[in-house]
Amino acid sequence: MFTLQRGGMTLSSLDERVLHPGVKGLPITEPLRQGAIGVQGWNVLNADTSFPVAVLKTSALQHNLDWMRAFCDRYGATLAPHGKTTMSPQLFGAQLANGAWGITLATAAQVQVAHRFGLRRVLLANQLVAKADINSVLHLMRGDPDFEVSALVDSLDGVARLGEAAAAQALARPLPLLVELGLPGKRAGCRSPEQVMAVARAVAATPGLQLAGIEGYEGLLVSNDREADVREVAAFVARIAQLARDADGEGLFGSAEILVSAGGSAYFDLVARGFNGMRGLSRPVRPVLRSGCYLTSDHGSYQRLIGALDEREARGPGLRPALEVWSMVQSRPEPGLAILTMGKRDASYDIDLPLPLYAHRPGPGAPTVLPEGCSIVKMNDQHAYLQLPEGDPVCDALVVGDLVGCGISHPCTTFDKWPLLLAVDDAYNVHHAVNTFF
Amino acid sequence: MFTLQRGGMTLSSLDERVLHPGVKGLPITEPLRQGAIGVQGWNVLNADTSFPVAVLKTSALQHNLDWMRAFCDRYGATLAPHGKTTMSPQLFGAQLANGAWGITLATAAQVQVAHRFGLRRVLLANQLVAKADINSVLHLMRGDPDFEVSALVDSLDGVARLGEAAAAQALARPLPLLVELGLPGKRAGCRSPEQVMAVARAVAATPGLQLAGIEGYEGLLVSNDREADVREVAAFVARIAQLARDADGEGLFGSAEILVSAGGSAYFDLVARGFNGMRGLSRPVRPVLRSGCYLTSDHGSYQRLIGALDEREARGPGLRPALEVWSMVQSRPEPGLAILTMGKRDASYDIDLPLPLYAHRPGPGAPTVLPEGCSIVKMNDQHAYLQLPEGDPVCDALVVGDLVGCGISHPCTTFDKWPLLLAVDDAYNVHHAVNTFF
Repeated sequence: MFTLQRGGMTLSSLDERVLHPGVKGLPITEPLRQGAIGVQGWNVLNADTSFPVAVLKTSALQHNLDWMRAFCDRYGATLAPHGKTTMSPQLFGAQLANGAWGITLATAAQVQVAHRFGLRRVLLANQLVAKADINSVLHLMRGDPDFEVSALVDSLDGVARLGEAAAAQALARPLPLLVELGLPGKRAGCRSPEQVMAVARAVAATPGLQLAGIEGYEGLLVSNDREADVREVAAFVARIAQLARDADGEGLFGSAEILVSAGGSAYFDLVARGFNGMRGLSRPVRPVLRSGCYLTSDHGSYQRLIGALDEREARGPGLRPALEVWSMVQSRPEPGLAILTMGKRDASYDIDLPLPLYAHRPGPGAPTVLPEGCSIVKMNDQHAYLQLPEGDPVCDALVVGDLVGCGISHPCTTFDKWPLLLAVDDAYNVHHAVNTFF
Repeated sequence: MFTLQRGGMTLSSLDERVLHPGVKGLPITEPLRQGAIGVQGWNVLNADTSFPVAVLKTSALQHNLDWMRAFCDRYGATLAPHGKTTMSPQLFGAQLANGAWGITLATAAQVQVAHRFGLRRVLLANQLVAKADINSVLHLMRGDPDFEVSALVDSLDGVARLGEAAAAQALARPLPLLVELGLPGKRAGCRSPEQVMAVARAVAATPGLQLAGIEGYEGLLVSNDREADVREVAAFVARIAQLARDADGEGLFGSAEILVSAGGSAYFDLVARGFNGMRGLSRPVRPVLRSGCYLTSDHGSYQRLIGALDEREARGPGLRPALEVWSMVQSRPEPGLAILTMGKRDASYDIDLPLPLYAHRPGPGAPTVLPEGCSIVKMNDQHAYLQLPEGDPVCDALVVGDLVGCGISHPCTTFDKWPLLLAVDDAYNVHHAVNTFF
């Protein structure tokens, strides 16, 4: 059974939290110690919780943890899963207990949260530019000699800002940096190999900074043309690898290992293959994958992408969706329409609207699979519009007070809507809480 | 100057909160008492904060509070602003101190939060269906005899569920309910006058329940055809008023006043006019407007809608945008592109992407207005893509480390991304924090 890792992470403080009435999903009328959630005997299918409620299926989480560990072992890849997806100390702990080398993050504030809950190694896969944000990261480095953090840089301006801050803070050890390779018309990152090398040389020449690797984000190449994506991702990963060789050829790396990193949640197999077996450099090469969405996957966008990855890997079905949002039919105003007690505050809507999976009349038994043709066609802040094919017996039977379980598309934008999610077994018994810090 | 109301609201406990490093926007490296934020001397334009940061301009907030109070006075309307917009106890306090009669909310969890922070009167403008949610609201009614809460109902099923729960809880006073009139093809609510009357009769006949009013939400009629909207909203409001008369004619109301309620943030003038001067019923009629977005307005969707309202009112410019998100240029990878340190986690994207207003190099002086043609064309979870017209001197001068201030469209979906916002004066000096509880 899936259990949360506590070693090295100060998670027990979360069990001691007092939760006040008003935390979404919790059916409490008096304050409750978080650690006592598992002994309340709540079951989602029995409608014991408040609705909407976000649930994590622990069997799917553990399957995904195991799957990803085996995947990384197969390719000699290191996993530093992107923590911005969940921002959950308990889930970070589970990832570290299942083979992750560290956690990737996107902002200085996220690094502060991670450090507060005991994380020891963070890859800040982003430029660090604001004075306060640079200082907060350097402050953690200075105050905690065992805390490892590295960040990205993609401009000489960026190098200068970091160099000045490092000098002002008089750090005992240099800040490790990865130079970011970008893509024309896309996000951050140097646009040419020449720029990457110029930035790498500047890092190597700046006291207080250390060149530790080369990085890119191939996830920006996801398009509707899967074959073109695969070619472009492979070429992009090869460019990162070559830049690492070039920088090493000039003796620019100051770190004990050379990091090469890419890998969102769509094409990490191509990244792992592209970095596999890099040898012959002046020091060991560590290929770091940063997929964040593998942990929960989803029922939408990533399920489609992972389906394609499964085909490339040819090892059978891979990651399983672990995150669902359950709500209740609050109104049944027309034959083909049910209004649900969830909305933009509760479930992702940036890539797809939520995907209705199950209906259930509160009580014992397994939920009923909703037929094709059921779809959420719109959400307001606090409502969802579930369109029902008329004449279908399951849909026609749906009444006020029935539960509807939805999958989501893009876990990141569902996690950030829930300060607390409930971890459930396959029978939807609630076993514990998972906190997020956005 | 805008100050937060503390009378009647237990807000001092929020000043005593200890904020840990990692709260978005705060430039802290050690825990800080929230009440001490105002004496830190932080200025956003000086880049003293972390970025991104969400700011509330107190001059605009106070203007909007005053404007809405005068508006309601003019039409004899009562304001119960929708609190789901901000979910901020301090802003609820400011609204109550400036004439609001109560706060409207959307979920039982929101009602619990509001009660925890001292709210005395809540209109839960939604159906209440889950067992735990009904019980949590009835629990507050029973435990706090001075806490007033009413809710909506739109079906006989809903009446039966509430009636059973009220009987089981043996309440000393009945739960006041408003019957919801809906719109064909839209959200919750009865679809015909006959249904409304049937539900109203059922409420009146159920022990533990009390018919208190008739309600609808005209905001669902917002379309691209402003003239048609105006006609349809006026007709919808008239139907609500007539249903109140009909129910009164049958002697169904059990409350001291009859509530008639509608009013999102787009057409509340039409609602106020439609309900103005309702007389001749068996007891006083209270028209309740529920606009939530008036408090901050915005630079997008609501600005457009409010512009049309200003034309109808013909009293000059009305509500002012009070909510901005500031971020920093983290990469300037191509001449026409700047990447900003904010994304889907930080600013609304459901109606429009954020609207870039100002650029500023950290330090003294006023920010520079960005030219037309600057636009956010895309956001990822933690990044925004600012497209810049090439050849414009302001845009060409934008470098890594410059600040960009953005307006947003739809305040509800920006507030829910910030556990804490910073209240600033017109010079962007930080005066205090405003919490949200989503």
